[in-house]
Amino acid sequence: MIGYRKILEQAARQMILIHDPDVLIRLIIKIVIKAIGLEHAGFLLYEEEKGYYTLTVSGGKSGTKLSEGFARVRRENPMVKYFSYGYRFWRDDFLIHSRIKRTLESKKMLKDPLRRQLLKELQYQMELHKAEVCLPCFFRDKLVGIVILGKKMKRKTFTFSELGYLSILASDVAMAIENAKLFQGIRIQLDKNRKLFLRMIEVLGGAIEAKDKYTSGHTSRVAVLSLKIFEELCRRGIVKKKNYQEKLRMKEMLHIAALLHDIGKIGIPEHIINKQGPLTPEERHIIEQHPVIGVNILYPLRKEFKDAILGIKHHHERYDGRGYPEGRRGCHIPLIAAIIGLADAYDAMTSDRPYRKALAKERAIGEIRKNKGTQFRPDIVEAFLNVLMREEV
Amino acid sequence: MIGYRKILEQAARQMILIHDPDVLIRLIIKIVIKAIGLEHAGFLLYEEEKGYYTLTVSGGKSGTKLSEGFARVRRENPMVKYFSYGYRFWRDDFLIHSRIKRTLESKKMLKDPLRRQLLKELQYQMELHKAEVCLPCFFRDKLVGIVILGKKMKRKTFTFSELGYLSILASDVAMAIENAKLFQGIRIQLDKNRKLFLRMIEVLGGAIEAKDKYTSGHTSRVAVLSLKIFEELCRRGIVKKKNYQEKLRMKEMLHIAALLHDIGKIGIPEHIINKQGPLTPEERHIIEQHPVIGVNILYPLRKEFKDAILGIKHHHERYDGRGYPEGRRGCHIPLIAAIIGLADAYDAMTSDRPYRKALAKERAIGEIRKNKGTQFRPDIVEAFLNVLMREEV
Repeated sequence: MIGYRKILEQAARQMILIHDPDVLIRLIIKIVIKAIGLEHAGFLLYEEEKGYYTLTVSGGKSGTKLSEGFARVRRENPMVKYFSYGYRFWRDDFLIHSRIKRTLESKKMLKDPLRRQLLKELQYQMELHKAEVCLPCFFRDKLVGIVILGKKMKRKTFTFSELGYLSILASDVAMAIENAKLFQGIRIQLDKNRKLFLRMIEVLGGAIEAKDKYTSGHTSRVAVLSLKIFEELCRRGIVKKKNYQEKLRMKEMLHIAALLHDIGKIGIPEHIINKQGPLTPEERHIIEQHPVIGVNILYPLRKEFKDAILGIKHHHERYDGRGYPEGRRGCHIPLIAAIIGLADAYDAMTSDRPYRKALAKERAIGEIRKNKGTQFRPDIVEAFLNVLMREEV
Repeated sequence: MIGYRKILEQAARQMILIHDPDVLIRLIIKIVIKAIGLEHAGFLLYEEEKGYYTLTVSGGKSGTKLSEGFARVRRENPMVKYFSYGYRFWRDDFLIHSRIKRTLESKKMLKDPLRRQLLKELQYQMELHKAEVCLPCFFRDKLVGIVILGKKMKRKTFTFSELGYLSILASDVAMAIENAKLFQGIRIQLDKNRKLFLRMIEVLGGAIEAKDKYTSGHTSRVAVLSLKIFEELCRRGIVKKKNYQEKLRMKEMLHIAALLHDIGKIGIPEHIINKQGPLTPEERHIIEQHPVIGVNILYPLRKEFKDAILGIKHHHERYDGRGYPEGRRGCHIPLIAAIIGLADAYDAMTSDRPYRKALAKERAIGEIRKNKGTQFRPDIVEAFLNVLMREEV
């Protein structure tokens, strides 16, 4: 098999597994430049949302290559019209600059002013894109893109066999692009759904919280602060995860747990939750049931949200073991729970409560520093202080 | 180009867009049988979860073709070992039954009992699968599957050019299968997340409901009944939707609305919700705020769940316009709201309430019949009665 064909066939085989249209086109252009020996090449990709073709990538020698994003080709562009409306001046699918020029110079053209006009426009467009050859990329009857080929190196000319081969490749590229777009579409959907899920939890968690008149916005703030502390712990290497996916999953569990950490309060009578003045020991005992009530509420989702539920259960444990419900200490408290515990304490101190006014930020920070190693896990306190410091700047 | 090559190349180009591995393999086998002229052909597909290869599809003349699911080939099978551990007795990748037979008959073989043993095993396996030729399908270094080719029609023999071509096709098939599996994987994930979303709503909605001591399990039952009524309305052509996707979306909105229809009750004081004995007009007025409170709670999600929120807002409207909050009548009440309204009323009647015992099922049905056209939309009553009748049987 001729050298360039072998290279291009291998490329065609692999491109189907690239699911980012940009990466895919970049690769193809690179391979075509190398296999055929071109000064530069580019690809005009149709962007559905925008309704026009953009030069997504362009490779080749600097100086000769076009700037990316430089070209924005509308559907009324003569090249697009030529390809998609099925005008055919030659037997093949290609637009070849030298051929257009030759045709325009022939005497026949003088009798056909309309055709002459279109050819002149095509010639102008090709020069604008420094194109020696343009190939259409069709998927079914949709013009997905246009391959732009610059001059060949050492002033060689294109052979028809090369062009024929490239035009088959172009339809493979069209299919790979469609495939990549489909993947991208589903991925975007997946991401959207995930965000919607968290927002729904936030809204429903917020509705529950609304019962507790004095804590409006509390869970959302605890969630935001917890996530920041988590990021800081990752930066400091304290959260060690095998891979990115694993870290993402843990972050999501923390997010869910933070949004729902007080969900169990729905099981506590209103008159205790909203009591003005200090609680009796019995009332305190009832309030301290809320982490376990939360666990019970989420019982049907115990498999899917195991780590989040542990975070809810233990967010009132203390580093020295004097917390509740289990009196766990030190590293026996799940990390998610310890993060939420600190964020919760800080937000509670800096908000008005039935029985006292909000503390100033500085005093709350002072309290947390003071309780480092007793109530709070030291490395989480450090991460927390760093987060606050960075926000101040 | 030779006939069969043209057919197979076209097939290779299209298969990437088929995202169901089963459909994909079925298509390929069909095309191969036709293009090469085979009595039958099949495909042993590796199934990751199971850890073995199964005959996913088999096409060809009945009588000659293998039964699907007939073959279950483990990784210790000599064919799998031959392909994946890189034993090579010949220069090419194929296992050809007639060639194995010839090799076994040659005198050389007597001196090599180990090799003879393996060849005999391979011969036996091929006969078991009625295979004249077997081709490996590799994706990178993973043996994704094995193509089984039966005899050619009219006792013709395979040419090496055919086999060479089929072996290239086999690697395209491997890639297409990988692609299809990836798609399937994401789709499954998407579906899982959707279900998890609904379950989370159910759990949180249930937690809110738990405040109302007398309605345990109410929202879940209303959701189940509402969905059944919806399905019945679809069957009767009363719900008319352009396509399946649209219907699915509406069903999901109904599901969400049904699970959250009473969410606004979280804004009503406990002493009114749980009051024993009749309500005063003022208390009644406060309780009647709950649909609008529900709308306010879900305000942050008003874009994504527009139809569900309308369902929540209007689930206490009446067909004759004497309901609340807006006194809408007839077709001005959203369908989702009207469905939930009926399911809600039925479930309330058949459950114990603070101020009365549950009604017998028959009496509740009688009440609904009686209020057809006044409180309830007639076609929904009909659908509801049909659902109950079917359940009885």
